[in-house]
Amino acid sequence: MLYQIFPYERIRSFCLKVYSGYGFAPPECEIITDILLCADLFGIESHGIQRLMRYHNEIGDGMVKIGAQPVIVYETPVSAVLDADKGMGQVVGVHAMELAIQKAKKAGIGMVSVRNSNHYGIAGYFADMAVREDLMGVCMTNTEAIAVPTFGKKAMLGTSPIAIGLPAGPVNFLFDASTTVVTRGKVEVYNKNEKPLPEGWAVDADGQNSRDAGEVIYNIVKKLNGGIAPLGGSGELHGGHKGYGLGIIVDIFTGILSSGMTSNHVNVIPGQNDIAHFFMAVDYGLFGDKNAIKERFSAFLHELRESPKADGMDRIYIHGEKERESEKQKRIDGIPISAKTIAEMQTIAEFHGIKIREYLGI
Amino acid sequence: MLYQIFPYERIRSFCLKVYSGYGFAPPECEIITDILLCADLFGIESHGIQRLMRYHNEIGDGMVKIGAQPVIVYETPVSAVLDADKGMGQVVGVHAMELAIQKAKKAGIGMVSVRNSNHYGIAGYFADMAVREDLMGVCMTNTEAIAVPTFGKKAMLGTSPIAIGLPAGPVNFLFDASTTVVTRGKVEVYNKNEKPLPEGWAVDADGQNSRDAGEVIYNIVKKLNGGIAPLGGSGELHGGHKGYGLGIIVDIFTGILSSGMTSNHVNVIPGQNDIAHFFMAVDYGLFGDKNAIKERFSAFLHELRESPKADGMDRIYIHGEKERESEKQKRIDGIPISAKTIAEMQTIAEFHGIKIREYLGI
Repeated sequence: MLYQIFPYERIRSFCLKVYSGYGFAPPECEIITDILLCADLFGIESHGIQRLMRYHNEIGDGMVKIGAQPVIVYETPVSAVLDADKGMGQVVGVHAMELAIQKAKKAGIGMVSVRNSNHYGIAGYFADMAVREDLMGVCMTNTEAIAVPTFGKKAMLGTSPIAIGLPAGPVNFLFDASTTVVTRGKVEVYNKNEKPLPEGWAVDADGQNSRDAGEVIYNIVKKLNGGIAPLGGSGELHGGHKGYGLGIIVDIFTGILSSGMTSNHVNVIPGQNDIAHFFMAVDYGLFGDKNAIKERFSAFLHELRESPKADGMDRIYIHGEKERESEKQKRIDGIPISAKTIAEMQTIAEFHGIKIREYLGI
Repeated sequence: MLYQIFPYERIRSFCLKVYSGYGFAPPECEIITDILLCADLFGIESHGIQRLMRYHNEIGDGMVKIGAQPVIVYETPVSAVLDADKGMGQVVGVHAMELAIQKAKKAGIGMVSVRNSNHYGIAGYFADMAVREDLMGVCMTNTEAIAVPTFGKKAMLGTSPIAIGLPAGPVNFLFDASTTVVTRGKVEVYNKNEKPLPEGWAVDADGQNSRDAGEVIYNIVKKLNGGIAPLGGSGELHGGHKGYGLGIIVDIFTGILSSGMTSNHVNVIPGQNDIAHFFMAVDYGLFGDKNAIKERFSAFLHELRESPKADGMDRIYIHGEKERESEKQKRIDGIPISAKTIAEMQTIAEFHGIKIREYLGI
């Protein structure tokens, strides 16, 4: 796949223009663009600008509603349930995490479960919103079912990521990981490169291990049986039942607590994504002096980082470091965009009557 | 290994007598016995009666303090930090979860982080305490470091389990899993049976994959480099960095929020275990009508259970089911105890001047 590199600011201006073209209000355009490009800056291409076409289609299909009015349907001082009114996931997510942060600042903890939403980008972005307010941030989302339960053969759970962030020096801790071995994107890369999948990543339509990336992707696209294995792999030998359980837990906090849909019902009813999210902010000052806690946490991460390396390895990473380093570099060097995505951006530009040349110089 | 089976009530009476012999108050003896035997009933032998000798030694060494007086060192309506005063982990754990439950009943959520404690048995027991009060229960503990960070070669994190429970029909959901591929016990079984370890379970002193169970156990016992891999395995290919991150997260909630010790400092200072735990209870009525939520959750679990099985498999399990079924059976059939454990029980009986024959008939 060929890539071209563009300066961050140019892509940003293009994105803002595109979302404004759909009828989103200026602050909404800012939010959507910021989260999309945050993924690219972090080096998570799958959740970045390459999603423009997917969102374009979802807006066109009415799955994402312009001018959505999310409503709090249940509330206490430490919690809320939000009906997202089919709003754009990023906008809904920022709104919900802001609510969780407000509650955490007043009551120490804020938990917000959201139903009737759409894809919101990277979960880590929202956890990091709380971190920037010197709080602990937690965020989860369910997704369309793609993961097969241990001993099953039908995808019933999403890749359902869990993100947790906590302030630390010199870099804030930011964990953001799916509860599956890998996400669909990685299987697609193996398929493109015609490489056999590593053992245990996926199962075929009979629920048996499959190393055939093409077959796995075909089954996913056609909504046949088979799919990706939970974290820990297929079967129980490497702990796949643990990843399977973590997937259920994400559906508890998202689809169940919000009285929305669980992963196996996401994107099933035509014209609705029905995705559910969860946001939590915790003032870690509930547990003592914040500076002291932050200092001890930073010292612990330092110990991990400085612990002996495996032979042949020169670094142990803390979650969030790779992303921040990638961001720093890409803000200087620019963001690589694939030829396929560029073509899609051109289609979208034409749809809006935008001259892509004025933005990207192509 | 030879096993003999004994009725639950007989083992229980023996256990109560033993703990009373150390000087624990009657309610404390009840708690310790109940949690120990709950593990055996659940079929988790590693955390059951076979731990008698380990605890015996820790009491003898002064690591576990008889008559400990746990103190709340920091408190808010939704949180507390407890200094366990080196108390027996089970007693401390019940006390801490009761505190979290009280807070959840008043404020909706209760979070209690505990430092300066000892081994407490199975994490699931405490999560289930909240479930029995019709709440969501969460429990974590750090443990002595045995897990090697991704790209590292020194054990820096514990097996650090996460347990989460939520009421459901017909069986309550109860997830309880280490954040490593396996626990030490499983590697010991492979060693005993002279079987090579599955690829990715453990690394040697150089941080390379090791399938040599004997070598891995030797390194752990001698506190040399090497150890068990995080959930997802060694390296990043199968998501080992996710398990590594989950291990850090458990240390955040336990060692960091309690201002206690993180896994890499557990059982390092002579005469102190310095284990830290975390307990959370959440009134899920914060999110709507409890009956409706429970019903929807039960329906979701039913869908998972009834989803198509992998060829050759006849059942998909929900977390907690195997344990409850094992418990039912063992309450009738009795609990199997290994010859080695029986010998240790005899030693302990002699120490206390108890006639084991009067209890177990041997």
